[in-house]
Amino acid sequence: MSAVAQTMNPSGVVTITTDLGNKGPFLATMKGVILKHFPQARMIDLTHDTFVHWPAEAGFWLERSFRYFPCGTVHLAVVDPGGAGETEAIAVVREGHAFLGPDNGLLAGVVGEAEDSTVYRVDVAQLGYQAASSFPGRDLLAPLAADLASGRVPPHELGPVTTEIVPSILPEPVADAKHVKGTILAIDPFGNLITNIGRQLVERFEHPAVSAGGRTFALRRSYAAIPPGDYAALINSFDTLEIARSQQSAAEGLSLSRGAPVIVTEERR
Amino acid sequence: MSAVAQTMNPSGVVTITTDLGNKGPFLATMKGVILKHFPQARMIDLTHDTFVHWPAEAGFWLERSFRYFPCGTVHLAVVDPGGAGETEAIAVVREGHAFLGPDNGLLAGVVGEAEDSTVYRVDVAQLGYQAASSFPGRDLLAPLAADLASGRVPPHELGPVTTEIVPSILPEPVADAKHVKGTILAIDPFGNLITNIGRQLVERFEHPAVSAGGRTFALRRSYAAIPPGDYAALINSFDTLEIARSQQSAAEGLSLSRGAPVIVTEERR
Amino acid sequence: MSAVAQTMNPSGVVTITTDLGNKGPFLATMKGVILKHFPQARMIDLTHDTFVHWPAEAGFWLERSFRYFPCGTVHLAVVDPGGAGETEAIAVVREGHAFLGPDNGLLAGVVGEAEDSTVYRVDVAQLGYQAASSFPGRDLLAPLAADLASGRVPPHELGPVTTEIVPSILPEPVADAKHVKGTILAIDPFGNLITNIGRQLVERFEHPAVSAGGRTFALRRSYAAIPPGDYAALINSFDTLEIARSQQSAAEGLSLSRGAPVIVTEERR
Repeated sequence: MSAVAQTMNPSGVVTITTDLGNKGPFLATMKGVILKHFPQARMIDLTHDTFVHWPAEAGFWLERSFRYFPCGTVHLAVVDPGGAGETEAIAVVREGHAFLGPDNGLLAGVVGEAEDSTVYRVDVAQLGYQAASSFPGRDLLAPLAADLASGRVPPHELGPVTTEIVPSILPEPVADAKHVKGTILAIDPFGNLITNIGRQLVERFEHPAVSAGGRTFALRRSYAAIPPGDYAALINSFDTLEIARSQQSAAEGLSLSRGAPVIVTEERR
Repeated sequence: MSAVAQTMNPSGVVTITTDLGNKGPFLATMKGVILKHFPQARMIDLTHDTFVHWPAEAGFWLERSFRYFPCGTVHLAVVDPGGAGETEAIAVVREGHAFLGPDNGLLAGVVGEAEDSTVYRVDVAQLGYQAASSFPGRDLLAPLAADLASGRVPPHELGPVTTEIVPSILPEPVADAKHVKGTILAIDPFGNLITNIGRQLVERFEHPAVSAGGRTFALRRSYAAIPPGDYAALINSFDTLEIARSQQSAAEGLSLSRGAPVIVTEERR
Repeated sequence: MSAVAQTMNPSGVVTITTDLGNKGPFLATMKGVILKHFPQARMIDLTHDTFVHWPAEAGFWLERSFRYFPCGTVHLAVVDPGGAGETEAIAVVREGHAFLGPDNGLLAGVVGEAEDSTVYRVDVAQLGYQAASSFPGRDLLAPLAADLASGRVPPHELGPVTTEIVPSILPEPVADAKHVKGTILAIDPFGNLITNIGRQLVERFEHPAVSAGGRTFALRRSYAAIPPGDYAALINSFDTLEIARSQQSAAEGLSLSRGAPVIVTEERR
């Protein structure tokens, strides 16, 4: 979190990330409220099928995806871990993008290290909004996203700068001289097992061997390089390590899911 | 239905509600046709995952959701109950919004009481459209929605005012001095059981007790107030009564689904 | 494929067809990249739930759907058959629409017969793009679609005209004097079995009898004409033959799926 305020020049684009599923009027009314407050908003669904009540997956995809959107995009993200009661909202500015969501660990990944970003604690009362709602994503965060995306309210007017936010419920990958240990965070539509281990942590090894669920997989360059039916590890298009199976679902074949540990070491030869 | 014509000043926004699922080219071609007739249309999917061939659920969500959209929005809704043969189309104007759909009960909820709205029976032949199509949502209603949303055709030019429309297949909640009896209408993405009993019908009771499936539930103020694993009733963010389970699916836990009766009484103390 | 170049006057609309599902950040980042390169793009999801790794279904829906979109629409389509390694990209111009996708048979249907269309082989290197990516739909085709949709790059500047493209993995329907033989290509949200046999091939028969899965079905004019619970064949709203069941799923009732053969003959009387 940076002492020097990051700036954001709004592009009019708003992405929306939730665990509401891509199907109901919940999401639609969030979009309606955004259009009410900012008729020119161009809204893109980032993902709504992350694991329910699990902010870690939503935050991971948002952190991996935001740079593919125009500078000046407002990224609205709402995943409630459940049972938590009232949560404060924060806004993050990083690399010319703005992020808006609950202070429950969801945005910890986009906040990143010191100097990467500026974080504001949203002062709901001062902005004239009611804090109490059983759907704050629609009643509080959607109008605030419209305010940011339209340029009506710059991020620094949302509330005071803060450096203390709730961390992610999921630990960052741990690396020592000989191992990197991470976690399976998501399963993609093809059944590939997506980990939170980034490219650089894998490139420390000359011949990386990837272990998960009691098996070890070699690193391949592309899906096409995996023999039919075989498993392999590879760096995916979001620049993290994944375990894939040629033309089949690795998740089903290996019976592995979210939360399973993954270890990278140097291959024994 | 009002004798004084309601007016609608188009905002360019079109919402779409169907039972087609959020996935196929059916929905896409409806949007293509709208863009062909009105290139500036801003389209929002309201919901496409309502129970297939059951207009009651689609109509319920539309009635609960429309006020979250900008005034001047055109709401296009198509759910065919199946086996009905040709259905006439109606347009409804209420509170500055326009609604377009088949006269099969789907729009009965948004029509509401006398004076709430003005209803027009769409005169397809006079408008120069062909009535016969196996996909009237795309071939007839989509171009009409574009006509309304662009302002090219005001609602009163669609056809004559009517006060006789097909009622909803689902009865309204029934209230007497001691009971309110309603119905489970939908299951949300979290497994909460959504009823058609509005906030005001519940607020008639000092300590409401909600019965469904042979069990009785107390009314709680929020999800966070439900002890882990417990069930409770609460007023949801669409201002109707629902039965929820803390961090789990009430629908699965109680084996209840659409159509099940729900009764509210004064709690016995 | 035409020797006379077809022209395309961009409308700013981009449709997207993939097998990525309507749910993840994969699709969202494709849209983000399009907006980065062309902020005014109006994007419509055509379908993302076609059979995974099966370009034939995606190509079929695209060919049946494109005329419902405004002239000047760019149709971006990406379905990888799996295991194929690097694939070249092609662009097709037909009836004022542009299509962009891999040369793997996906676009064979929209290319059609000679004179219908003009096909360009995309010269990635000359355009300044990197060919190597594990997600060419996002990293290569999305920016190219933005270039086409914005009018910045006309189709003929993408690369040389070609008349040799990879054919579809699915054969066209075969017709002789007494039979038409086609294939079930898709199952719609209602469980109807959609075939690749177009209206004209059915209209050759006076009283068509449609056989599939060991049963024979009469041709009906509309869903409403099918007695409750019964099966029938009919020409659907995309102008191809389908097998439907009144208010129920024909796919489940008949245990038929993609790839099953369907034969049309003259009814024996």
